[in-house]
Amino acid sequence: MSLLIICPGKDPEVWKKALQEYDPEIEVEVFPEVKKPEAVEMALSWNHPTGNFKSYPNLRVVASMGAGIDHIFHDPQLPKQVQVTRVVDEKLTEDMSNFVLALALDHIREISYHHSNNGWDKKMYRRPEETRIGIMGLGVLGMAVAEKLKMNGFPVSGWAAGPKKMVAVNTFFGEEQLDDFLAEVNVLVCLLPLTPETENILNKSLFQKLPKDAYLINVARGKHLVENDLLEMIDNGHLSGASLDVFRQEPLPKEHPFWKHPKIQVTPHNASITSPRSVVPQIADNYHRLKKGDPLTNLVSRQKGY
Amino acid sequence: MSLLIICPGKDPEVWKKALQEYDPEIEVEVFPEVKKPEAVEMALSWNHPTGNFKSYPNLRVVASMGAGIDHIFHDPQLPKQVQVTRVVDEKLTEDMSNFVLALALDHIREISYHHSNNGWDKKMYRRPEETRIGIMGLGVLGMAVAEKLKMNGFPVSGWAAGPKKMVAVNTFFGEEQLDDFLAEVNVLVCLLPLTPETENILNKSLFQKLPKDAYLINVARGKHLVENDLLEMIDNGHLSGASLDVFRQEPLPKEHPFWKHPKIQVTPHNASITSPRSVVPQIADNYHRLKKGDPLTNLVSRQKGY
Repeated sequence: MSLLIICPGKDPEVWKKALQEYDPEIEVEVFPEVKKPEAVEMALSWNHPTGNFKSYPNLRVVASMGAGIDHIFHDPQLPKQVQVTRVVDEKLTEDMSNFVLALALDHIREISYHHSNNGWDKKMYRRPEETRIGIMGLGVLGMAVAEKLKMNGFPVSGWAAGPKKMVAVNTFFGEEQLDDFLAEVNVLVCLLPLTPETENILNKSLFQKLPKDAYLINVARGKHLVENDLLEMIDNGHLSGASLDVFRQEPLPKEHPFWKHPKIQVTPHNASITSPRSVVPQIADNYHRLKKGDPLTNLVSRQKGY
Repeated sequence: MSLLIICPGKDPEVWKKALQEYDPEIEVEVFPEVKKPEAVEMALSWNHPTGNFKSYPNLRVVASMGAGIDHIFHDPQLPKQVQVTRVVDEKLTEDMSNFVLALALDHIREISYHHSNNGWDKKMYRRPEETRIGIMGLGVLGMAVAEKLKMNGFPVSGWAAGPKKMVAVNTFFGEEQLDDFLAEVNVLVCLLPLTPETENILNKSLFQKLPKDAYLINVARGKHLVENDLLEMIDNGHLSGASLDVFRQEPLPKEHPFWKHPKIQVTPHNASITSPRSVVPQIADNYHRLKKGDPLTNLVSRQKGY
């Protein structure tokens, strides 16, 4: 039994090293030079080439290197029997919470605005308690961000496709409660999983349901956002701006209008960066669970897509 | 008995309106057209003309419009019998805490850097728990900032000229412990009162005692900082940068090198902005205490200068 590392465009050797240092018993193969494809029962993967998983007849688990798993489900040739896991990492969760808090505070205190404006433009700021944050997506990340912002004085609402247990956050569920959720949100934070239902969900019709001067933070996936709709709604004055960490094409092309837009703040998809050393223990744990026939942790529902 | 509003360069009418709406019994005079100088027993003041307080023979209290009182003690002709009060406002304290938290998070996550850099420069960030904040000045503001940052995962040290009660913060006191304090600080936050002892305290000799790549946040007074020393220590690579909210000359002159420096972030003295409506109740309260002969609140020590 072996574990295959497959991450074209990333350096697989740092992952191999981290895995072998943590657990020398794990047999590791590295794509594309796979010596015994029939021994591969688990893959640790990021942006694999479409169809490649069919090359391993005994593959049973594909583990994403990060929190996102859309790059796996995106492959129509993903073998049916394969289970998919994602990374759930407290550090990544904390990183995301801190990043969204930084963007929310930056927005209300206009730190970046003053920085790039280069003028003495003293004006009253908005306070956290006057700024309702609306979080779309109430998974592990959404819940952690909600708690972090609440702890820092922001009123928080949450929206999720299906019912979730939420503590002390004003929660809305499903299509029928989406408009009510949006109507009171000053800063909309997208932390949804990317599925066929959520692709393009951040569009003109949704933006129109937000109050005037609302602000968008997208830290989920670029495909959630209809980019031209955002530009239109900022330029017509309905939205006050946006912080975007994810894009339809990454790296964001140099000529893209987001770069120079005075009301759009671009960060290079670094809300939370997976570190091999912090992730490897849960991958190794699942490897041994698989070997022993125990149930895996951090499984993703293939039916729901998250 | 009357209260004199004296704030050249600011609009006194918003203060008069706020005072009279809150308490119509208070008799208000507005500088420079003072009808009965001998009736003035209290002044509400910001940047008064030097020597002017001598014009009111029965003046007993000068109340600062803000948290700072250096503009009052700066006047060598301040009558000896006058008591000085400052504003202690929970909102201002919270605003300061949120602002310093925003700057600290902005620094470790390099939000403004990404914003102004306009390039896809993805790299690992620093985490709060890896970033020790050192707070100089442990008054009401310093203590509140320390708690806010601790709550958000930053290790915090504090330094004060004289002993203070501190809870759960690593505290250093006096000249003799200053070097030990500085040696472990990654982000130095200045919240000291401005006195002859603290003027120019942020100088080359102090910066050299900080670890390499330390960062400065000055939210106290411009005169704490020797500007050319900061520029030198950033340009020689010892300090990684600075966020400055206060300056020797305000507004910061257009031609000042801070504006265009890529590692210096300028904000227009808006860490916390006094709002007349939130401050007026404590001014009115002291007015009535003075009238009745009760002890005043928020008194400042003339001997210590804060």
